[in-house]
Amino acid sequence: MSAGSALIGVGVGPGDPELLTLRAARVIRDADVVLAPSSALDAVGRAESIVRQACPGVRIERLAFDMGDAAASIDAAAATVVAGLDAGRRLAFVTLGDPNVYSTFSSVAARVRELRPDARIETVPGIMAFQELASRSGTVVLQNAERLALVTALDGPDVLDAALTDPTQAVVVYKGGRHLPEMAKRLAAAGRLDGAVMGELLGLPGERVLPVAEAAEGPAAYLATVIVPPAG
Amino acid sequence: MSAGSALIGVGVGPGDPELLTLRAARVIRDADVVLAPSSALDAVGRAESIVRQACPGVRIERLAFDMGDAAASIDAAAATVVAGLDAGRRLAFVTLGDPNVYSTFSSVAARVRELRPDARIETVPGIMAFQELASRSGTVVLQNAERLALVTALDGPDVLDAALTDPTQAVVVYKGGRHLPEMAKRLAAAGRLDGAVMGELLGLPGERVLPVAEAAEGPAAYLATVIVPPAG
Repeated sequence: MSAGSALIGVGVGPGDPELLTLRAARVIRDADVVLAPSSALDAVGRAESIVRQACPGVRIERLAFDMGDAAASIDAAAATVVAGLDAGRRLAFVTLGDPNVYSTFSSVAARVRELRPDARIETVPGIMAFQELASRSGTVVLQNAERLALVTALDGPDVLDAALTDPTQAVVVYKGGRHLPEMAKRLAAAGRLDGAVMGELLGLPGERVLPVAEAAEGPAAYLATVIVPPAG
Repeated sequence: MSAGSALIGVGVGPGDPELLTLRAARVIRDADVVLAPSSALDAVGRAESIVRQACPGVRIERLAFDMGDAAASIDAAAATVVAGLDAGRRLAFVTLGDPNVYSTFSSVAARVRELRPDARIETVPGIMAFQELASRSGTVVLQNAERLALVTALDGPDVLDAALTDPTQAVVVYKGGRHLPEMAKRLAAAGRLDGAVMGELLGLPGERVLPVAEAAEGPAAYLATVIVPPAG
């Protein structure tokens, strides 16, 4: 590896290209190669779409991520990264949201670290979906000494119950789109349905931002984000 | 109020001017007036300092916030905002971190809403201190289905105990600088001291990023941020 080689996980926010930070835009422009995860090599992923708009003209290389075989996808991505590092390149790996919070980047970086223990690996923070949802919906997530629980509903809506026991705690639920009707029921039972909001495709075509009570009546995307503010 | 008047809470991140988003920079530049909180009218606050560097030439008006009399400071800030709105102005109220997470902006906005129920109030998300600390320290906050608790230690280090009961939960503690030695003890008792990091003055002169075990040996700033990753 040359002295200048590096892998930099760059958070590009949830969708609106304007939510890139100045640092993210600079790191993307200065990179030798921009790597963007995609569900298939012939599909434009969300992160790639954001970079195309925010940094026109930047050359992007796709990394295919097959959710059905995550381990193999991570290995393949790490192999691409290692080849780039060995060639002395500065690689920007763009990722939705923040690279240190629920990001595939962490898994790829961990694998690269196994293969090249001396690799220089850095990250650039990015705006998370719940922050943009708070902004779009006019929701104050936390004030003064309240607490926040950030959870995923990957394993179902049960995560909500524990998080709802403390009424002074705000709750953010990621990846709960499939469980919205059940989540709405539990929020109503806990007296927390009022003020709860749901957002999907934030900053992208088809964006929806609406009360959970209303969103629960129809289907929502798997990646939907929900904010439950502290009890008033 | 004229049709164009608005109050926009703009998150400017924790300290590094490069952590402004492109949207924040645009909103600050397009504003008629930029309002920045400060501990005194003759002191440059952190948010003002960030804006001066990221958006040179922008005219900034200070709002004095006396932590000893927060209610009066909020009333005074709201009165300044209302005067600006009544004059048809577009006001950018800059705030550290994110305007919807532990920000004085929420309190000012709530007061403005009481005085002018029809006021247009918006926010622009900003990078939070813990995200920059994760980046600077190489800390993965959350991976896969882990959970995050965001708490403040304003009321002392007891908040940690409840948050530490779940080993798969990452914990971020804000405003715990005064309690670092006690927090280090409790983290050690819970087997969570390894990997826990502390940051203060992130992106500012005097920045420190170091393991909690080490930071606890000396004094830290009140506004210090601590990340406790999930148990390995």
